[in-house]
Amino acid sequence: MRFTSEQRLDDGVVEREFLLGEIPGVLWTPPSAPAPLILSGHNGGLHKREPRLVARARHHAGTYGFAVAAIDAPGHGDRPRSPADERHRAGLRRALAAGEPVEDIVNAFLLPLVERAVPEWQATLDAVVSLPDIAGPVGYSGMTAVGIRLTVLEPRIAAAVFFGQGFVPGPLRAQAGDVAVPLLFLLQWDDAGMARQPILDLFDTFGSREKTLHANLGGHAGTPWFEVDDSARFFTRHLR
Amino acid sequence: MRFTSEQRLDDGVVEREFLLGEIPGVLWTPPSAPAPLILSGHNGGLHKREPRLVARARHHAGTYGFAVAAIDAPGHGDRPRSPADERHRAGLRRALAAGEPVEDIVNAFLLPLVERAVPEWQATLDAVVSLPDIAGPVGYSGMTAVGIRLTVLEPRIAAAVFFGQGFVPGPLRAQAGDVAVPLLFLLQWDDAGMARQPILDLFDTFGSREKTLHANLGGHAGTPWFEVDDSARFFTRHLR
Repeated sequence: MRFTSEQRLDDGVVEREFLLGEIPGVLWTPPSAPAPLILSGHNGGLHKREPRLVARARHHAGTYGFAVAAIDAPGHGDRPRSPADERHRAGLRRALAAGEPVEDIVNAFLLPLVERAVPEWQATLDAVVSLPDIAGPVGYSGMTAVGIRLTVLEPRIAAAVFFGQGFVPGPLRAQAGDVAVPLLFLLQWDDAGMARQPILDLFDTFGSREKTLHANLGGHAGTPWFEVDDSARFFTRHLR
Repeated sequence: MRFTSEQRLDDGVVEREFLLGEIPGVLWTPPSAPAPLILSGHNGGLHKREPRLVARARHHAGTYGFAVAAIDAPGHGDRPRSPADERHRAGLRRALAAGEPVEDIVNAFLLPLVERAVPEWQATLDAVVSLPDIAGPVGYSGMTAVGIRLTVLEPRIAAAVFFGQGFVPGPLRAQAGDVAVPLLFLLQWDDAGMARQPILDLFDTFGSREKTLHANLGGHAGTPWFEVDDSARFFTRHLR
């Protein structure tokens, strides 16, 4: 793991870009380090420098004293896209625009992405938790599809916040019952592109003994800012 | 309004019992008074001294600096029950035990209760907001049936937390679209006595432009304690 830039923000949070092999990432650490770590997994189209993700990470570090790590998933952000990535993206855009069913395309696109992303998150976890800035259990916050697989495979993840609006391929949906950590599941009530009932069914399926659903009005990307505080309080209950 | 007892708690909260005509109530005020007021409306079977309600009220006052008022609804707590009250309660218990439909009984029981309870809440509001300890907008936290009617009729209510598990008679359900204040709606996911879908439908019906659903695992009375903090933070956003 090699740090490529370092910046100290006004509230004392240190923001460092890094490279782990070919994986580019950002690590935010609070003035109160060593601190528990949150892995911030972004959505399909976003990358590690997406403004909402950066704002959330800085708030979780500056106000709540968590360390936060984000990486670019394969084919996202600063990383090259393979011809297969481009083909899948074009196919998905076409199907969405035409109002056609997308399940097969999503499975073909997302499943291999999850298969590649999860070991990268685990390698990132290995590298980051060995730093002196990090101590204690780890949380995951982000995309549900990656989150299910990562949370089931990775015993260091002790609590998770999933954004319920993401596509979740069938095979991962089938694994949701194996998710056992405390869970906060976010649902946008009026997402035109995403039916509500399958998301509620997924919430019902998670195996966690403590799970909470927060549903808010608004579309896909309209999660209100106060949910960032609620997530931080959820992680404070379970990681400290 | 006549205060009948006064007790100062360890954290400086003052807990006073009062009588407003024949209505017995309790008012909690924080050391930081004057403070915004929360009306704490309890459930069908509970009364103003029910331990969970008292714990919530003391926490909202002591930790978050709200004033909280609770009264006994007609036929509840210290108040006499009419023969009609007793008849309805017995009928409801019998129907629930036999697994029979309860909608008619609930309508016959709850609608008149709401009709009597709402003007009593308004009279309580008149009396309490005239005290020097109270300032700012008012919140309501409690039973949905009373809450819908009170929130629609009473312009001083600026935000509301409804417990979604309560029976809501059809005529009040029909009024849910007129609820316009910011709303936090609590749902217990595994309430054996209460189907989930009508509660989700009711959430969908509320007219509020800002509304959030919090669903937690567990049965009717199992709302986790952290929801008391979430309610306080919701009221802090909207009453301060």
